[in-house]
Amino acid sequence: MTITAATPQERMRSARTASRSLGLLTDAAKADLLRGIADAIDANVTVIVAANTEDVARGRADGLTPGLVDRLTLDEARVRSLAAAVRDVAELPDPVGRVLDDRVLDNGLHLQKVSVPFGVIGSIYEARPNVTVDIAALALRSGNAVVLRGGSAAQSSNAALISVMRGALADAGVDPEAIQTVDDFGRDGARALMRARGLVDVLVPRGSAQLIETVVTESSVPVIETGAGVVHIVLDASAPLEWATDIVVNAKVQRPSVCNAVETLLVHRDAAARLVPPVVAALQAQGVTVHGDATTAALASGVVAATAEDWATEHMSLDISVRIVDGLDDALAHIREYSTQHTESIITADDAVAERFLAEVDAAVVMVNASTRFTDGGEFGFGAEVGISTQKLHARGPMGLPELTTTKWLARGAGQIRA
Amino acid sequence: MTITAATPQERMRSARTASRSLGLLTDAAKADLLRGIADAIDANVTVIVAANTEDVARGRADGLTPGLVDRLTLDEARVRSLAAAVRDVAELPDPVGRVLDDRVLDNGLHLQKVSVPFGVIGSIYEARPNVTVDIAALALRSGNAVVLRGGSAAQSSNAALISVMRGALADAGVDPEAIQTVDDFGRDGARALMRARGLVDVLVPRGSAQLIETVVTESSVPVIETGAGVVHIVLDASAPLEWATDIVVNAKVQRPSVCNAVETLLVHRDAAARLVPPVVAALQAQGVTVHGDATTAALASGVVAATAEDWATEHMSLDISVRIVDGLDDALAHIREYSTQHTESIITADDAVAERFLAEVDAAVVMVNASTRFTDGGEFGFGAEVGISTQKLHARGPMGLPELTTTKWLARGAGQIRA
Repeated sequence: MTITAATPQERMRSARTASRSLGLLTDAAKADLLRGIADAIDANVTVIVAANTEDVARGRADGLTPGLVDRLTLDEARVRSLAAAVRDVAELPDPVGRVLDDRVLDNGLHLQKVSVPFGVIGSIYEARPNVTVDIAALALRSGNAVVLRGGSAAQSSNAALISVMRGALADAGVDPEAIQTVDDFGRDGARALMRARGLVDVLVPRGSAQLIETVVTESSVPVIETGAGVVHIVLDASAPLEWATDIVVNAKVQRPSVCNAVETLLVHRDAAARLVPPVVAALQAQGVTVHGDATTAALASGVVAATAEDWATEHMSLDISVRIVDGLDDALAHIREYSTQHTESIITADDAVAERFLAEVDAAVVMVNASTRFTDGGEFGFGAEVGISTQKLHARGPMGLPELTTTKWLARGAGQIRA
Repeated sequence: MTITAATPQERMRSARTASRSLGLLTDAAKADLLRGIADAIDANVTVIVAANTEDVARGRADGLTPGLVDRLTLDEARVRSLAAAVRDVAELPDPVGRVLDDRVLDNGLHLQKVSVPFGVIGSIYEARPNVTVDIAALALRSGNAVVLRGGSAAQSSNAALISVMRGALADAGVDPEAIQTVDDFGRDGARALMRARGLVDVLVPRGSAQLIETVVTESSVPVIETGAGVVHIVLDASAPLEWATDIVVNAKVQRPSVCNAVETLLVHRDAAARLVPPVVAALQAQGVTVHGDATTAALASGVVAATAEDWATEHMSLDISVRIVDGLDDALAHIREYSTQHTESIITADDAVAERFLAEVDAAVVMVNASTRFTDGGEFGFGAEVGISTQKLHARGPMGLPELTTTKWLARGAGQIRA
């Protein structure tokens, strides 16, 4: 179902109007709505893949890297897995209507703090058409309307997906204006979204550190920052070798391109001779390039000299930076300087060291003796992941559906006035 | 204890460093710290009043209104009541260290979501020296450092109060850099604070709608909006006369200059002849000027014609706007257009109307049959009020000390890696 409104502002106003009825839908109605969207995506695989083929051809002609082309591409299997993901979100519990506080004042006034949808959620993201479906499904499941701005390289795919989803809304008797895109306005669409105070309640950027920085800096709409992860693992003097090796290899190798992969290893000087050679060898055996400081290079072979830049770099590849530190204070100082406050872990057999690390590190998730790859909504048991917040306002760490709601106080009285 | 750092950035960096040790203080240490501050304020009444006298003299010479001069003025009694308020905050429960979620994954990884201080809280506010002490006490009680920017008209008073409070920190063995001001940098100080991403974790503006708008629009630091209240009371067709009169008079008259006072009364057409004459008369008897639409003016004497502007105005005075509406839908539409999403109330004997109003109004606090004056941290039982959030991110409605904390996930493992 195509969009007719001519300006970003008109579309956002339509989304706001639609959000009112959406916010009143029952749990069952929202779940049905999502199942309808999943069915519609399945029924329109051919149309969606055809639209995507245009984007991919244009992307290749424009010289997109193979990695970006891969993220852009939708074949039949990927479209069907998108539909399946929407069905999974349908099965999650309704985050709306939870009673979070309940108190009766001495004068009999009954106060309840309940969870309610934000209203309109905006998202700015890169050329990954799966995010279009993902965010729309999460927003609708939590009773919100959504205004999407994906990367221009995915414009045809996004238009097809949004048209299919809007059709499913209309079929379910829900206002199709609840899903909007401002893709066709290019940068002006993004700008309108970032300045849409009063029309859009919260903006969730998803993508590169640069995209997130732009959105945070230019938005007057409240933003939930997600993503960037310069993630550290500290090997304490007491770190058991087996945990050190297993956890570091898992955190680096299992999926190097994601934000919870480790980027920098900090090794206590007293354990360097014991731990560096086997840990580096285990990493190298998995194809990891180790960027080390001078001490690391002296302890293991095949180590590339780390540059000053490495410490601040989210490699997102089979690269890891290794530095020898003088102890816990030195490790904490390094983390303070370079951490993006996503996830930090320490491997130690010393409880006092563990508890100090947990208390003093300022990050969304602080771990002891575990792989940083666990920072994930699915692993945490949330069922769906909106993103991983690396800021301190509203939500911190993996965000599930409840983080797409706000609260409202309801006060039921019988004539109470203030003395 | 005076500040030596020469730039806003240096001061904010000092605050950040101080915040680390502050965040680790025990409940008892923080309570003692606040009691020490209260004692120091009491011991320095003369110095503080003398500094304030300079501000007041300058303010009078600059032509400040009597109302602003009154808000600026500190005499001995007011200084002692400031100290008493700090002692009250000392007695509140520690908002830090609450376990908000606790789960053990199938693999044995133990996850806990705990409340932690933000780190550094910034505040921009107007020439009210009591806010300087108020915000500093709330920030410290919740383990945060604070960077303050008060109105330039209160600069001498703020400098004296901050110097006294910093001295109390030093006496308690706490880094005095935990309290900072950027007052002496004028507008550049405010600008530095609004752009201090990475140094300041959250910014709380307090003051006029215009001040808040500026802070929201110009800040790259996350902001919690507080304040503006164009507050409505709806009189349903079924509204009992006694509740209508008592609640409307209380909501307008008890303290007209605050954000939870009512500004606009919307009366169901079917009840207008019954309710408007006595309610208007009761308001006028308390000195209220009633700005009404034509129907209101026809039903009661002494009604001033309401202008289009009145509906969007936070009078903050003994003025009220009155409009006759065609029913609940019309009332809801009016509220959607003019509400600042602070507090909205309906007086009704009809449960279905009440529940529809509670469900459909988008505001921080939605009331049935109660005075809007109850939207207040003290009345809600929070002990202290940081402000009333009129936004949807992080906090909504009255904010107590817990709203000055964020969260951190702690993960305690024994070698877990991700499959």
